[in-house]
Amino acid sequence: MTSKWLWGDPRLQEWTVAVRRHLHAHPELSHEEVETARFVREQLESWGVETTAYGNNHVIGYVRGARPGRTVALRADLDALPVQEETGLPFASTRPGVMHACGHDGHTAILLTAARILAERRAELAGTVKVIFQHAEETVPGGARFLVEQGVLDDVDAIFGLHLWQPQAKGTVGVKAGPLMAAADKFTVRIQGKGGHGSMPHETVDPVVVAAAVIQNLQTVVSRNVSPLEPAVVSVGSVQAGEGYNVIPDSATLAGTVRTFREPVRRLIAERLRRVVDGVCAAYGATAEVAYTFGDPAVVNDPVMADLVRRVAEQVVGPDRVVEAEPSMGGEDFAYYLQQKPGCFFFIGMKGDVARYPHHHPRFTLDEDVLPIGVQMMVGVALAYLAARPG
Amino acid sequence: MTSKWLWGDPRLQEWTVAVRRHLHAHPELSHEEVETARFVREQLESWGVETTAYGNNHVIGYVRGARPGRTVALRADLDALPVQEETGLPFASTRPGVMHACGHDGHTAILLTAARILAERRAELAGTVKVIFQHAEETVPGGARFLVEQGVLDDVDAIFGLHLWQPQAKGTVGVKAGPLMAAADKFTVRIQGKGGHGSMPHETVDPVVVAAAVIQNLQTVVSRNVSPLEPAVVSVGSVQAGEGYNVIPDSATLAGTVRTFREPVRRLIAERLRRVVDGVCAAYGATAEVAYTFGDPAVVNDPVMADLVRRVAEQVVGPDRVVEAEPSMGGEDFAYYLQQKPGCFFFIGMKGDVARYPHHHPRFTLDEDVLPIGVQMMVGVALAYLAARPG
Amino acid sequence: MTSKWLWGDPRLQEWTVAVRRHLHAHPELSHEEVETARFVREQLESWGVETTAYGNNHVIGYVRGARPGRTVALRADLDALPVQEETGLPFASTRPGVMHACGHDGHTAILLTAARILAERRAELAGTVKVIFQHAEETVPGGARFLVEQGVLDDVDAIFGLHLWQPQAKGTVGVKAGPLMAAADKFTVRIQGKGGHGSMPHETVDPVVVAAAVIQNLQTVVSRNVSPLEPAVVSVGSVQAGEGYNVIPDSATLAGTVRTFREPVRRLIAERLRRVVDGVCAAYGATAEVAYTFGDPAVVNDPVMADLVRRVAEQVVGPDRVVEAEPSMGGEDFAYYLQQKPGCFFFIGMKGDVARYPHHHPRFTLDEDVLPIGVQMMVGVALAYLAARPG
Amino acid sequence: MTSKWLWGDPRLQEWTVAVRRHLHAHPELSHEEVETARFVREQLESWGVETTAYGNNHVIGYVRGARPGRTVALRADLDALPVQEETGLPFASTRPGVMHACGHDGHTAILLTAARILAERRAELAGTVKVIFQHAEETVPGGARFLVEQGVLDDVDAIFGLHLWQPQAKGTVGVKAGPLMAAADKFTVRIQGKGGHGSMPHETVDPVVVAAAVIQNLQTVVSRNVSPLEPAVVSVGSVQAGEGYNVIPDSATLAGTVRTFREPVRRLIAERLRRVVDGVCAAYGATAEVAYTFGDPAVVNDPVMADLVRRVAEQVVGPDRVVEAEPSMGGEDFAYYLQQKPGCFFFIGMKGDVARYPHHHPRFTLDEDVLPIGVQMMVGVALAYLAARPG
Repeated sequence: MTSKWLWGDPRLQEWTVAVRRHLHAHPELSHEEVETARFVREQLESWGVETTAYGNNHVIGYVRGARPGRTVALRADLDALPVQEETGLPFASTRPGVMHACGHDGHTAILLTAARILAERRAELAGTVKVIFQHAEETVPGGARFLVEQGVLDDVDAIFGLHLWQPQAKGTVGVKAGPLMAAADKFTVRIQGKGGHGSMPHETVDPVVVAAAVIQNLQTVVSRNVSPLEPAVVSVGSVQAGEGYNVIPDSATLAGTVRTFREPVRRLIAERLRRVVDGVCAAYGATAEVAYTFGDPAVVNDPVMADLVRRVAEQVVGPDRVVEAEPSMGGEDFAYYLQQKPGCFFFIGMKGDVARYPHHHPRFTLDEDVLPIGVQMMVGVALAYLAARPG
Repeated sequence: MTSKWLWGDPRLQEWTVAVRRHLHAHPELSHEEVETARFVREQLESWGVETTAYGNNHVIGYVRGARPGRTVALRADLDALPVQEETGLPFASTRPGVMHACGHDGHTAILLTAARILAERRAELAGTVKVIFQHAEETVPGGARFLVEQGVLDDVDAIFGLHLWQPQAKGTVGVKAGPLMAAADKFTVRIQGKGGHGSMPHETVDPVVVAAAVIQNLQTVVSRNVSPLEPAVVSVGSVQAGEGYNVIPDSATLAGTVRTFREPVRRLIAERLRRVVDGVCAAYGATAEVAYTFGDPAVVNDPVMADLVRRVAEQVVGPDRVVEAEPSMGGEDFAYYLQQKPGCFFFIGMKGDVARYPHHHPRFTLDEDVLPIGVQMMVGVALAYLAARPG
Repeated sequence: MTSKWLWGDPRLQEWTVAVRRHLHAHPELSHEEVETARFVREQLESWGVETTAYGNNHVIGYVRGARPGRTVALRADLDALPVQEETGLPFASTRPGVMHACGHDGHTAILLTAARILAERRAELAGTVKVIFQHAEETVPGGARFLVEQGVLDDVDAIFGLHLWQPQAKGTVGVKAGPLMAAADKFTVRIQGKGGHGSMPHETVDPVVVAAAVIQNLQTVVSRNVSPLEPAVVSVGSVQAGEGYNVIPDSATLAGTVRTFREPVRRLIAERLRRVVDGVCAAYGATAEVAYTFGDPAVVNDPVMADLVRRVAEQVVGPDRVVEAEPSMGGEDFAYYLQQKPGCFFFIGMKGDVARYPHHHPRFTLDEDVLPIGVQMMVGVALAYLAARPG
Repeated sequence: MTSKWLWGDPRLQEWTVAVRRHLHAHPELSHEEVETARFVREQLESWGVETTAYGNNHVIGYVRGARPGRTVALRADLDALPVQEETGLPFASTRPGVMHACGHDGHTAILLTAARILAERRAELAGTVKVIFQHAEETVPGGARFLVEQGVLDDVDAIFGLHLWQPQAKGTVGVKAGPLMAAADKFTVRIQGKGGHGSMPHETVDPVVVAAAVIQNLQTVVSRNVSPLEPAVVSVGSVQAGEGYNVIPDSATLAGTVRTFREPVRRLIAERLRRVVDGVCAAYGATAEVAYTFGDPAVVNDPVMADLVRRVAEQVVGPDRVVEAEPSMGGEDFAYYLQQKPGCFFFIGMKGDVARYPHHHPRFTLDEDVLPIGVQMMVGVALAYLAARPG
């Protein structure tokens, strides 16, 4: 890669890879990142970085500059996934059924390296860099919400985070003002009919037919009710009803997800979903319980902070490699931070011969070539923010 | 045909055919049977049969026996259809767009001949035969309902009627106790949405999609709500919505028919139809007006009267040619008479080389061979009823 | 009850009840009726009735008359159901999770008593009564098919069977010529789509939506393709797809039952089902495997044999208590016998204060009052058949 | 309004209004803009602007600069709509049923004024400004396609156009790189079933039910097949089937529109639409004819030209009034020009007390306050382009 190593000792690049491989070999599931957190904390403290935490599965460090100033937060996520690794890498997961299949090992290695570089440059800093190694990004509700509720952003002026991103071309930095990643909600619908023998449907309220009608009519929420200019998804991921072939069951259960970028659209869909379910059930004489869980909100970048990231990226990878990030319907709990403070979440592209499989795939592989881009971006963004916005 | 000519002068058979051909050549639409009624009245009166009427498009005659007794009614229907005849027969319709395409010309010729025979046998009769030549069988509401409301059955003890029946084998008489022909109801559904431009569905309530959902969900009324042992039909015959391709219309209109044999089923469907429409509309935020018109009720034969017909038929065509009539989902306003008095409606089969096209078809053709069966059945049933149930 | 005890010693009535209670207390599941079969065989042999079998879970007995003649078969079924009894009766099932919840204990006691009476009257008989105590009526394929394949009807001229019938008024005998109980088929549909993340439906072929469309469109098979005069049921009893809420699964599986009375209707539905599935899958780019299993055929009574049963019933319960049996959409493997030989299956009504729960219910209870009707019907039918149709 | 009058004599503003009112009072339908074209040509020629045309319903003028250089085209559209005006304005349409209800009168007045200013400044110009007064923007296919086919852009290097835009705040200029207005396609689907009587659905292939299934399943094209990040609309604007209530018709006809911004999405939908129709028809044994007409393509602005417009707008209305244009699902045949040459189509916002009704509404009213913004934008863009890109 041709990224420029602008800040810190270039020899640290090897260390970043080593850290990442260590983490990859020892993945921990969401909420259980105890060893990972201990490792991170020990590193931070070994450089004199003060640490704190609201539990044992995450770590927060303060790199305090010599002069007073604003506080900028940088965030990484620590958790792995319940996936059985199939990469065959020499440093593959040593834990059956657990794998860093999303790249959080890379995120952690990047932020740790960035913290090390910034710690070495404390004398130049005006203000504080708060490094947040967050737990449980992969669950709903995740670690970000917890940390925000604990007040992790109370002393912070802005926050930045990144994702190593397989769908984006290797070596590019993707930035976008406004909506970047979707709000991810969950719903379950339990349709209560009245069971009976399959040969006597007229004595039943057939929940299988009601479920089918609900699923079909739900398609119109996106096709008819949401503006075509507003990205939105309503997917029913599972439907379960009955066990035998000749008995009409009492009930049917659907579960699904809703993805949106803007709150009015999200509220509209939640409301329409209920109305479709209730109306269809009324048509059939069935009843339903709808449970709608609002999950992570959408990741919405501050335009000014996005500009700052863009300018840093132009230095790190050159203007030609700074791209408009493609929004993703996937969710990311970084959204909670952005609801509190201005900030920007951005992508480091990896797509290529090495990073061929999508995130969460058993053969998902990080391209370690791009780790230095991540490190430089994190350091550069922190320096730019503190320089640009002196306290 | 091998039917027995048990009653009356066999030479009358030619006259029956002549009458039928005259009527066939001069068909009149429902409610407009003025010339036909005049023709019938003149015939009846020429035999000394007293006539009456509640208007000029039907005739009622009284063949009064020498001795007192019960009154039995025999009914024929006079009206033709708005069909352009394509039979090429020498006595084809002389009126463009009007045709006796259902066989009422035959029914009238049969009953006229029967009345003539009975009039000739007045001396033997104990009681009265009331011959009803009814108008407007083909419309809803039809002539039967009108006549019943006028009191046509007030002095009647039992009533019989027949239909020359193309789907049944030639020369047979079809009899069935209980439900024979379906109740025929009509419904219209006007779905009120909110129109708009086809490119902005989210600003509309799309009645086209609602109509589609209503039609689909209505299929479950028969498939799920009605007992599989109860014959029932719900058909949407027309759907009209919008004019252009790129404008979402304000409303959609459906019209359809419901066919049933029993009142509880009929009520169930009328109720379910409303609930399906209302529920689906609620699901979409649309509203609807449902107009449900209860049309002719089902033709339900009295078991005792059906037995009487069966016994007469065994004499007329022989036991091997008396069949269990296949119920029909078609409607027949004879049903109104059977709601008032015991009676039986029965079929004279015609299916064969001559009667190849279905009722209402432009090439529908009566098989005149079976007219004598009809005449003998009418005479025989009247004689049997008056003999069996002396007043 | 006022049924007449026309044949045999009236004191046997107590014995019938005792036998039934013994069987009720010791139920055996389909194909496992070994003790029951042994008990029946021992009884038969104790009266000098010759027995045979094609296995150890059923018994066949020959009551041979003194004079030569035709052979009439009478059939009972031996098996119980996998139901946990909740009747609280003193002679309730002693076997956890197994219960005579359909009345086969009564059928067996009835036929055993009838065989005893007939055995005592061997001297009067011209011909043979073959009593078939069949296993596995409750499974598909059941014992009847097996016995027929073994040749059990090869030496039989006609066959009769009965069912104690909860939905029919107590003390009545229900007879019906033609179709009485439905053919019961099974189908499974496995829809193969292409799974993916719930947030990216456009990269999937969503089998949940395809399954919903299949279920909805299947409703039209009954509502549009089958004649309204032909009873038919298509029920989807189960649908299973997906496990999580935010993953679109690879496939969906439906299972259901089809009930019909006539073969052409049955074939039509099997064919339409495939076309609906294939067409809908093609619309979505999915594929499907349809497995259609033809189960028991319909029970179709011979009209002459039904007349014979009706005449016997008029003697046993009086003409007022002989009713036209309501057809049932339920299946019964007696159908296999009727495919081979003329015969009639009929119902003994039980509905009343005692028999309040439907067949297969944990609180289903036989009304023992009607057992004598069953015994007299079986004896009477055998005597009438052998008398009416001497060999 | 506070727009700056940077170029030309400010007293021309009154003339612009007068021209617009004259045009408004004398609207002409698409393809019939003969008087309007004559008026425009006479004006142009009165200033010494050379004109040409490929017919009598449009005009093309050449404002040739003193020095050589590039050629930039500016476009206005001339046609009115078949709408009965209800504004009550003193200069309302004098032609019954025809109205300038979209603002093309304003577009023409703006471009005419701009041409006049540019003509007065010919001495300063390096290059040529080609002013295109196009006919038939409101029809498919429209005037733009015709002119492009005639070669109107052969001597042009870049092209700009504007729309007075009611949904955008008054006084703002809306610019957007990339997709701005949707491709607008048309489809019709004729479903061929087999008609029959409403009481005998089993003898028909019911096209009403098929149409309903097609409409419902088409909803999944947007909800499942198109990426949620790609704006797309599939609307069925009309469905017509049957006339009576008790006859199942032979066929049903649907018509609708498809809106997209990108060709791959457009092709995907056209292909999916056919498959859904074919698959559903196959499921029911019906057939269908699908006619898919590709209409105007999407308006896709060149990023460099959009930047140029943005910079001019910052001068004309000030940076705070330059907004990111909201994409519209509506179509615009300016798209054809942008398929040939780089260029930019932009919006002049009007929303406010005067411009309260949407485009195409009988009470649609231009806010004449914003006409000067349009004039200055057209002049400024032409000057900027010729200055920036000397030939």
